[in-house]
Amino acid sequence: MTAETSGTTSTTEQNRGGLEGVVAATTVLSKVEGTTGRLIYRGYNIHDLARSTSFEEIAYLLWYGKLPTKMELVDLKVQMLEERTSPTEVLQVLNDLPSTIAPMDALRTAVSAWGAMTVEGKPGIDQAIALTVRFPVFLAAFHRLRNGLEPLESHPELDYAANYLYLLSGQIPKEEHVKALNAYLVLLADHGMNASTFTARVVASTECTQDRAEGWLRDALARGERLMGFGHRVYKTEDPRAEELRELARLADPQAFALARRVEELALALLQEQKPGRHLYTNVEFYSAVLLASVGLPGDLFTPTFAASRVSGWTAHILEQINNNRLIRPEAEYTGPTEMHFVPLGER
Amino acid sequence: MTAETSGTTSTTEQNRGGLEGVVAATTVLSKVEGTTGRLIYRGYNIHDLARSTSFEEIAYLLWYGKLPTKMELVDLKVQMLEERTSPTEVLQVLNDLPSTIAPMDALRTAVSAWGAMTVEGKPGIDQAIALTVRFPVFLAAFHRLRNGLEPLESHPELDYAANYLYLLSGQIPKEEHVKALNAYLVLLADHGMNASTFTARVVASTECTQDRAEGWLRDALARGERLMGFGHRVYKTEDPRAEELRELARLADPQAFALARRVEELALALLQEQKPGRHLYTNVEFYSAVLLASVGLPGDLFTPTFAASRVSGWTAHILEQINNNRLIRPEAEYTGPTEMHFVPLGER
Repeated sequence: MTAETSGTTSTTEQNRGGLEGVVAATTVLSKVEGTTGRLIYRGYNIHDLARSTSFEEIAYLLWYGKLPTKMELVDLKVQMLEERTSPTEVLQVLNDLPSTIAPMDALRTAVSAWGAMTVEGKPGIDQAIALTVRFPVFLAAFHRLRNGLEPLESHPELDYAANYLYLLSGQIPKEEHVKALNAYLVLLADHGMNASTFTARVVASTECTQDRAEGWLRDALARGERLMGFGHRVYKTEDPRAEELRELARLADPQAFALARRVEELALALLQEQKPGRHLYTNVEFYSAVLLASVGLPGDLFTPTFAASRVSGWTAHILEQINNNRLIRPEAEYTGPTEMHFVPLGER
Repeated sequence: MTAETSGTTSTTEQNRGGLEGVVAATTVLSKVEGTTGRLIYRGYNIHDLARSTSFEEIAYLLWYGKLPTKMELVDLKVQMLEERTSPTEVLQVLNDLPSTIAPMDALRTAVSAWGAMTVEGKPGIDQAIALTVRFPVFLAAFHRLRNGLEPLESHPELDYAANYLYLLSGQIPKEEHVKALNAYLVLLADHGMNASTFTARVVASTECTQDRAEGWLRDALARGERLMGFGHRVYKTEDPRAEELRELARLADPQAFALARRVEELALALLQEQKPGRHLYTNVEFYSAVLLASVGLPGDLFTPTFAASRVSGWTAHILEQINNNRLIRPEAEYTGPTEMHFVPLGER
């Protein structure tokens, strides 16, 4: 089913802004039926799940595509238990921040610091588990620090919802509170292509551009890999910025430029030979690297130096967006099942 | 001009994924012409700008909509000079992080910590300036710290590009290096609806949902404000999660529930009276707040506790996205001028 045949896209709707009615991605994770008021996670109705599942089961369902058996749930809980920790560096960062900041800002900063130290390689379920279980840990640590209390260690006998309440208060929480919070966590775990989820997908979609240091030209091409520095999603001619950067790099360091020019010519010749119809030109990455090296920057500062330029554009776009704002919330086309029969854990 | 008439959208293209050809927003900031290899900032060709303008002039152009006069540029530089500082808390955070992390991760964490302490209210040009000038400051501070050196104070006589090189090395940089880096910063400052810019706009587009604690019901409605807790962009019936949360809140704290129920009924009656055609129902926010309060959470933990649930969905979507990835890069429809005559600063 396309965006057209699903009846959600029309030029008129698209012109209302905010991508309303535009399908941004297909998903099998959740289906939001606005007109009938139905919410489905991977085929299961939210009403079945809210009353009879733990947050851990729902996380398993979202990540693995099926509800866990008892043994699979035990395995997940064991892995979660091992990850429910806070590195001392992250606690130190939380301690450095003024106690008056919003907990959401503290969480964002802690997750950023933790990710900097920990996350490597392509996203996978192990990363998803390690990240997810730390949200309550970091939040509770900040909450205790801002109240002049020491952060606590996670309680090995408590599950996700109960452990969060325990980490905040230091008390074993009441059963009704755990049940209510667990159901809340289950109910809010996914909701189609909302803005935060869409943001996560936009960021994830850029991952293909991150491996920049890939091997030598012929090997890379022989392995069918993309050659960074050449080709662009939008430009079908040479990128006008590449032209400028080439000239600037020539002036900044003639010797380094000569080498770069030979590499560029070789790469273009190889691309022409091996992908003849593609018209791949040198893009902005190639001479950016040459230029930034020639002014003395180490390689791992190239991308953040790009950010030091682009932040002017990001902020200008933010100002433009909020001046004529409509929430950007495209549609997801749900392509999974809709009427899975729910079987509670005891019978799985 | 609509997405259809611009010739960039078709069902076929949309089905290729990644929103290619779909117009996500109109902009007057930059126009990327892929077929002719032309890049324009607010009507000015990038080739004119790359050789004859400072990064400060370009930031001014993007934020204010015109190239600055000499006096306007002086004013901007004075304001930038005042902001080119790093709070001790941010330096402390950077110092806590392992020296082996990627500078991009250090920058993200520093910006997060700085924003937590500093950014308040709606985005404006003052915020854009304060944020932009700190990127090189934070980057250079991290770079010096990881090399066992003390971060430096900004040099009051150096502009953005030169000051960045100075903050890294402690040396007044060579003129050719400053010129090359400045031109790089000018060239990369904006580029249509690329993924990072699009992400910034998606996040900015959510700002309308942040003021949650707005006044009393009648006053709020009388002032024409939106009533948080009622109405949803997607659901035209009651949100199925709201139904569940209402029942859970009733069980978790019957007394608080009774009050919440009366407020809900009053609000729905008022909405029916004042916005009769709108069919506004109680949404997930309303009983989320009641439920989370009833399990003992302070109000400022409500949104981050939502994040502690939704992170399972975000990570599941990230995994789904990368498994069948195509860069999400919609189009911007450029609605500004395209052939502005460039006049260098000396003649403005």
